[in-house]
Amino acid sequence: MKLYTFFRSSAAFRVRIALNVKGVKYEPLPKAFAKNEHRAADYLAVNPQGLIPALDVDGAVLSQSLAIIEYLDETHPTPPLLPGDALGRARVRSMAQAIACDIHPLNNLRVLNYLKGDLEQDEEAVNTWYRHWITAGFRGLEAQASEFSSSQRFLFGDAVSLADICLVPQMFNARRFKTDLTPFPTLLAVSTHLESLPAFAAARPEVQPDAV
Amino acid sequence: MKLYTFFRSSAAFRVRIALNVKGVKYEPLPKAFAKNEHRAADYLAVNPQGLIPALDVDGAVLSQSLAIIEYLDETHPTPPLLPGDALGRARVRSMAQAIACDIHPLNNLRVLNYLKGDLEQDEEAVNTWYRHWITAGFRGLEAQASEFSSSQRFLFGDAVSLADICLVPQMFNARRFKTDLTPFPTLLAVSTHLESLPAFAAARPEVQPDAV
Repeated sequence: MKLYTFFRSSAAFRVRIALNVKGVKYEPLPKAFAKNEHRAADYLAVNPQGLIPALDVDGAVLSQSLAIIEYLDETHPTPPLLPGDALGRARVRSMAQAIACDIHPLNNLRVLNYLKGDLEQDEEAVNTWYRHWITAGFRGLEAQASEFSSSQRFLFGDAVSLADICLVPQMFNARRFKTDLTPFPTLLAVSTHLESLPAFAAARPEVQPDAV
Repeated sequence: MKLYTFFRSSAAFRVRIALNVKGVKYEPLPKAFAKNEHRAADYLAVNPQGLIPALDVDGAVLSQSLAIIEYLDETHPTPPLLPGDALGRARVRSMAQAIACDIHPLNNLRVLNYLKGDLEQDEEAVNTWYRHWITAGFRGLEAQASEFSSSQRFLFGDAVSLADICLVPQMFNARRFKTDLTPFPTLLAVSTHLESLPAFAAARPEVQPDAV
C-alpha cells in the first residue's frame, strides 16, 4: 500500500496510526501543503477530493480517513478497531465523528487560510476560533468518555478503537494551539496512555520522513 | 424509536431519510434551534454533544448522523445502505464523508453565528463562505460521481446508499443559498432522481411537523 500523507495532517496521522495498529507496511508518498502539492493536477487525478490522506491499494485510491480506516478494519480484521456489537460500534463511531466531523474540519489549514485571507482575520482571532471548536467538541466528548471509558486507557472498552485513533491527533493539535485542557481529564488520561503505545508513537508528525 | 430532530437540520434530514428507507417508524421529538433547545440542560443530559440529531433506541441515545445510519443499517439490514464489498463500502463512505466532514460542518448554524457574531461578518460574506465550501466539496464529489454513478440515479451502483442520503440534504442547502450548480451535472441528475423517491420526499424539511 502507498499512503499519500503530510506529516502534520491530522487526518493522515489517523490513518498512519491505523496502519501501524494493524501491522500493515506502507510506502509514504508525502505531499507538501506549503507547496500546494495536494491541489496539483497530478494529485487531483488520483484523488479528486484534493485532500490528504489517500490510500493506494493496488491502484485503487481510497479517500477520507474514516472510510480508509473502516476499509483497513474490514480487510485486516485483527486487532478490531470497532466493538463486536452494533450499539458499541455506534458509540465508537459517534465519538470518532465528534472529532472528525465537528472539530477537525473547522480547523483545517484551508479554513484557517480563508479566515486569514478572505476574511482578513489576525492571528489572535484565528487562534481563538481554533480553540473555540476544540473546546466545544471536547466538552461533549469528555462527557461521553467519562461514561464509556471505564479504564481511562481507551475512549471505549478495553482496546484501541477508531475513536482513540481520532483523539490523539486532535489532542496533538489542541496542545499545539495551547488549548486549556484542564476541563477534559478523561480525554487527557486516555490520550496520555495511547501516546505511549508504539503504533501511536510511530505515527507522530515529528517522526515522519517529510517532517520539517 | 424516538428521533431528536429539527426540520431544517441537514444531519437530521439524513437520518429521517434512512429511517424511511428502512421502513422504521419513529416518534419525532423536535428541538427548536431558534430557542436553543438543543443546548438546554435536559437535552445535554441525553446527548452531551448538544447537536441534532440523536436517536433514542429503547433508552440508549445515539448521536452523530453517520453513526446512527450505520447502526440502522446493521440492525435493519434490508435494504442495505452500503455495498457488499469492502472497496465499494470505502467508496460510498468516502462520498458520504466528503459531505458530512468537509462541507456541512463548515456551514452549520453555529458556525454561521460565529462568523456573524464574533467575527462581525455581514450577510454577503457569510453567504459567500457558505457557497465556497459547497463548491469546493462538490467539485471533488462530481468527479467521483461521474466515475461511479453509471445510472445517474444513485451516486454509487444501482441502489440508495449512505452517500445518496448525504447528497440530498446538501443539495437542498446548496439551492437555499443559491449556489451555482451548473458545474455539477451528475450530482444534479442523481439528486433530482432521489428527490422523487417517497422515502426522500417524506423526509424533506418543509413537510416535518415542526416546520415553520
